[in-house]
Amino acid sequence: MVSKNEIKLIKSLTQKKYRNKYLLFVAEGEKLVNELVKSHFKIKQIYTLENRDIDLDKTLVKLVTEKELKKISNLVTPNSTLGVFEIPAFKKPLKGGLQILLDGIKDPGNLGTIIRLCDWFGVSQLICSDDTVDCFNPKVVQATMGSIARVNITYVDIVSYLEKSEMPKYMTLMQGDSIYRQSFPNDAIIVMGNEANGIRPSIQKLADYQITIPKFDLGSNAESLNVATATAVLLSEFRR
Amino acid sequence: MVSKNEIKLIKSLTQKKYRNKYLLFVAEGEKLVNELVKSHFKIKQIYTLENRDIDLDKTLVKLVTEKELKKISNLVTPNSTLGVFEIPAFKKPLKGGLQILLDGIKDPGNLGTIIRLCDWFGVSQLICSDDTVDCFNPKVVQATMGSIARVNITYVDIVSYLEKSEMPKYMTLMQGDSIYRQSFPNDAIIVMGNEANGIRPSIQKLADYQITIPKFDLGSNAESLNVATATAVLLSEFRR
Repeated sequence: MVSKNEIKLIKSLTQKKYRNKYLLFVAEGEKLVNELVKSHFKIKQIYTLENRDIDLDKTLVKLVTEKELKKISNLVTPNSTLGVFEIPAFKKPLKGGLQILLDGIKDPGNLGTIIRLCDWFGVSQLICSDDTVDCFNPKVVQATMGSIARVNITYVDIVSYLEKSEMPKYMTLMQGDSIYRQSFPNDAIIVMGNEANGIRPSIQKLADYQITIPKFDLGSNAESLNVATATAVLLSEFRR
Repeated sequence: MVSKNEIKLIKSLTQKKYRNKYLLFVAEGEKLVNELVKSHFKIKQIYTLENRDIDLDKTLVKLVTEKELKKISNLVTPNSTLGVFEIPAFKKPLKGGLQILLDGIKDPGNLGTIIRLCDWFGVSQLICSDDTVDCFNPKVVQATMGSIARVNITYVDIVSYLEKSEMPKYMTLMQGDSIYRQSFPNDAIIVMGNEANGIRPSIQKLADYQITIPKFDLGSNAESLNVATATAVLLSEFRR
């Protein structure tokens, strides 16, 4: 049985203010939930269809009907399993390593994809500006495919973070130097800008290096790459 | 005035069978529509809010109210402009150059992002398997940001296409050789597989080269990259 209050609580977690109030977030899908169950995230409650088996302390697992699952799910076609997990305490950013810093990323799919890339390319720290979309937004969590549990993510005032950091700061700007004509250090901060407006001028002026992914066909009208695919190209170039 | 039949027609274009019946597709947003207006696509009709100005033959432009725009739009928050364009006739794939071949891509956002990448990296031909999502699906068109007008896209039987082609065929497979330890030709076909299942075995056996994007942190549980970000990394590596 899923109570009315439980449904209300779970559905409220699509909103950031309620996630911050209850310090809980939602993940859906058997594969994703199983991965988060094995991670450092503390489980609040797992809801799963009666015909599914899940290897967990029984008090943490609630068997539900398809109808009940539909009531708590955020997906158009609910999967078999939904997990509610605790949002961990704020952690100070790690020092050193390869870091990605996001200046105002708004699209949950883009942030989720970037978190997945950070996991693949061994990024030590993902720094988000305070106005970047919340990483515990359910759409972000889904898009990370479990990488949310393996990447260090912190939300900070990025101006003061960049001012205090002694690491070389690379910013992706149209007028930058081609990424293919330079070599990159192991320890660096790569700054990626907002989908529509790029990197804010107040951040741009803190750059040590301006870099760009050159367009192959200069005659093309293509204006830019999507921020997640640009991050993929840059991480590959830093790591190759 | 937008007639009931017009609304019905435009809304039907979210479905492939009606796009194929009427040979029409929809694009939304002032910037995107303006870009397609300047392209080789033939305009059927542009709908735009009364306060907007559009530089076009007046018979092709219909001024609409916000209420009317909402009725024909596929977006949650409709933009100011919606365009209906003709789907051009089937074109035979170009020979030579760098080609991307998609084996069963299902997500419209992924296909749109890949089309945008093909534009940026000067891909001569994008080949899609017959079961890849339709490139005139409105979500694909939106995600291309206008690149749909600049990339050659063809849907074919990919088995016979690959069997007939004499170009070297690169397939991205887990067990492939690192992309960072080889050099690539200018003329090649890069095959990318379905989001969940990768490249079909019947296609895999047509590979000349098996390649992979190595994971930086081998201890990480990350299983794969998103197909669009993997395409970004590969295209950058072929073009660098």
